[in-house]
Amino acid sequence: MTGLLPEGFHDRLPPYADAAARLERRMLDSAFAYGYEQVDPPLAEFEAALGARLKAANARDAVRFVDPVSQRTLAIRPDITAQVGRIAATRMAHHPRPLRLSYAGQVLRLSASQLRPERAMRQIGCELIGLDSVEAAREVVAVAVEALEAAGLTGLSIDFTLPDLVEALGVVPPERLRTLRDALDGKDAAGVAAIAPAYLPLIDAAGPFDAALARLRASDHAGPLASRLDGLAAIAASLPASVTLTLDPTERHGFEYQSWLGFSIFAAGVPVEIGRGGTYTVMHDGGAEEPAVGFSLYADPVLAAGLAPAGRRRLFMPYGTPADIAAQWRREGWVTVAALTPDDNASAQLCTHVLGTDGPETT
Amino acid sequence: MTGLLPEGFHDRLPPYADAAARLERRMLDSAFAYGYEQVDPPLAEFEAALGARLKAANARDAVRFVDPVSQRTLAIRPDITAQVGRIAATRMAHHPRPLRLSYAGQVLRLSASQLRPERAMRQIGCELIGLDSVEAAREVVAVAVEALEAAGLTGLSIDFTLPDLVEALGVVPPERLRTLRDALDGKDAAGVAAIAPAYLPLIDAAGPFDAALARLRASDHAGPLASRLDGLAAIAASLPASVTLTLDPTERHGFEYQSWLGFSIFAAGVPVEIGRGGTYTVMHDGGAEEPAVGFSLYADPVLAAGLAPAGRRRLFMPYGTPADIAAQWRREGWVTVAALTPDDNASAQLCTHVLGTDGPETT
Repeated sequence: MTGLLPEGFHDRLPPYADAAARLERRMLDSAFAYGYEQVDPPLAEFEAALGARLKAANARDAVRFVDPVSQRTLAIRPDITAQVGRIAATRMAHHPRPLRLSYAGQVLRLSASQLRPERAMRQIGCELIGLDSVEAAREVVAVAVEALEAAGLTGLSIDFTLPDLVEALGVVPPERLRTLRDALDGKDAAGVAAIAPAYLPLIDAAGPFDAALARLRASDHAGPLASRLDGLAAIAASLPASVTLTLDPTERHGFEYQSWLGFSIFAAGVPVEIGRGGTYTVMHDGGAEEPAVGFSLYADPVLAAGLAPAGRRRLFMPYGTPADIAAQWRREGWVTVAALTPDDNASAQLCTHVLGTDGPETT
Repeated sequence: MTGLLPEGFHDRLPPYADAAARLERRMLDSAFAYGYEQVDPPLAEFEAALGARLKAANARDAVRFVDPVSQRTLAIRPDITAQVGRIAATRMAHHPRPLRLSYAGQVLRLSASQLRPERAMRQIGCELIGLDSVEAAREVVAVAVEALEAAGLTGLSIDFTLPDLVEALGVVPPERLRTLRDALDGKDAAGVAAIAPAYLPLIDAAGPFDAALARLRASDHAGPLASRLDGLAAIAASLPASVTLTLDPTERHGFEYQSWLGFSIFAAGVPVEIGRGGTYTVMHDGGAEEPAVGFSLYADPVLAAGLAPAGRRRLFMPYGTPADIAAQWRREGWVTVAALTPDDNASAQLCTHVLGTDGPETT
């Protein structure tokens, strides 16, 4: 059983590996067209530095090892966003803002979840650093949607949330916040009513975007909620009508590090979230904080859902075909597959065409 | 110093990360046009299975960790070739031969060498499995050359070697082979003469390809050498005249696992080897062996040598430019960078052009 792989790790074989690479290229090209340029941080870093920028759950999930060179503990990244934050706060600290960065790379996690069984996966994303305004969030959401549509996904839906809403409303004393958050997370209306009845409309408001927004506007919360709702409305209005929007104002799971805005992205036919993002804070040396907004996409669930790889179109070169003839067909856009022995044949090589006397013939 | 990285690890920043990605795309596209389709094995595997397919030096160099799920030791790959061999021997064992596979991905090594100081790097390559004939080797060398030329490299040179020559000639008793090899590795003419004077021409033959080949043909070795020299001559004759060829018939360093053919690739202006390859054997379950030939390229030394990234051509969208206007310029091939505040300006955003009333104007 030398071919067996650990749980959560897998090989991607032809033609799916090429399909995944094409998907990733299209996503990165979409972001590039909006001015997002790639950074490529290393697979491993000093654990202490990386851990300080990771969510606690991610830090626990990182593979660690002792580096024989530095005699210090290094960690394999479980997430690339933290590394992009480090780059923005250190080597690119003096680069003018807003800073638009994209990335694509492998991440590794010790544990998997039921929803996300992979432990090695590719993360692709964009971060806009220096702003977390409505304009900035609108651009980032637009880039995410355009990148996914460029990759061929249809039936996109975005579920917005307002992660810091409970704190921002500020009507509950700090010592009861935890209990309130637990009640809201569990959609426990009785529990919420017992602590702060004013929060009940937040539970009821979850659902299709326009209706949820209207219900929230009709609730009696003042300033903090109003400005967030205006922001959400502006972001929603800028998105193409093809994208379904929902709003779950108190959803915080996985958004613990987001500030005023969070969002999850889903696509028709894909059972799990395919991406997520939101506003957050980049920490600088000395404690300064910088606003930012970004998103991450995962190629694996999209491909696993059966996104069709492009059809193969391969032209078989019979044994003895001169190299310059094959080169000529490649210049015309063909994939050429050369017979290297007299016994090689077109169908075994998955060729759709064979080079005949008058050019390519279908097999 | 939260920005400090371990020795041998580095960030690639704009515009070099995009340049590296473009380079890699061109290499993979070149191979794809010859029928090589990508496989994407995972970053980590069971140590025992991966180690069995790695050179001993590489296996020692792998980062290992205990997997909490399987309670077994996993290793991060220090090399992707071994994984491609595993795929060919297991999941793709019944796929018709020859099997043409390509790959690109991150590898991680605990130790670095003076020549190759990076410990995290990207490996890109192609493997042709099922044949190690002259025709097969000729195709693989041609793909390597075309991939590097497509990536913009010039002044390529290939240094061929015949790794199993000493064994193949068979004129030295097995117990003296080790001593002979050491003498040959050290180009120690006196040492070689003391063991087997017949091998002296092999040392003298190192150098420019045609002259080296002529000297070897003139030496008094029989069969095994003649067939290898005919093969080398055929491979050399098929390469474009722009590629400089050399031959060092006894060079074995790093080619311990190669069979009859090995080669190193260099490029003008790059102080270190940029790729290497050769013929080898893929192990199947049960001990069966299958011939193969392939090459690996390293993007890092090429980029480090200053391969010029493409010029930026970015169009600044003044604050308030409608989204559909920006989209129109992107469709025309521009990178658009939107002002998100009234204070954003074109030069800080590295824009070469600003959208004026009559279209793009240079800044």
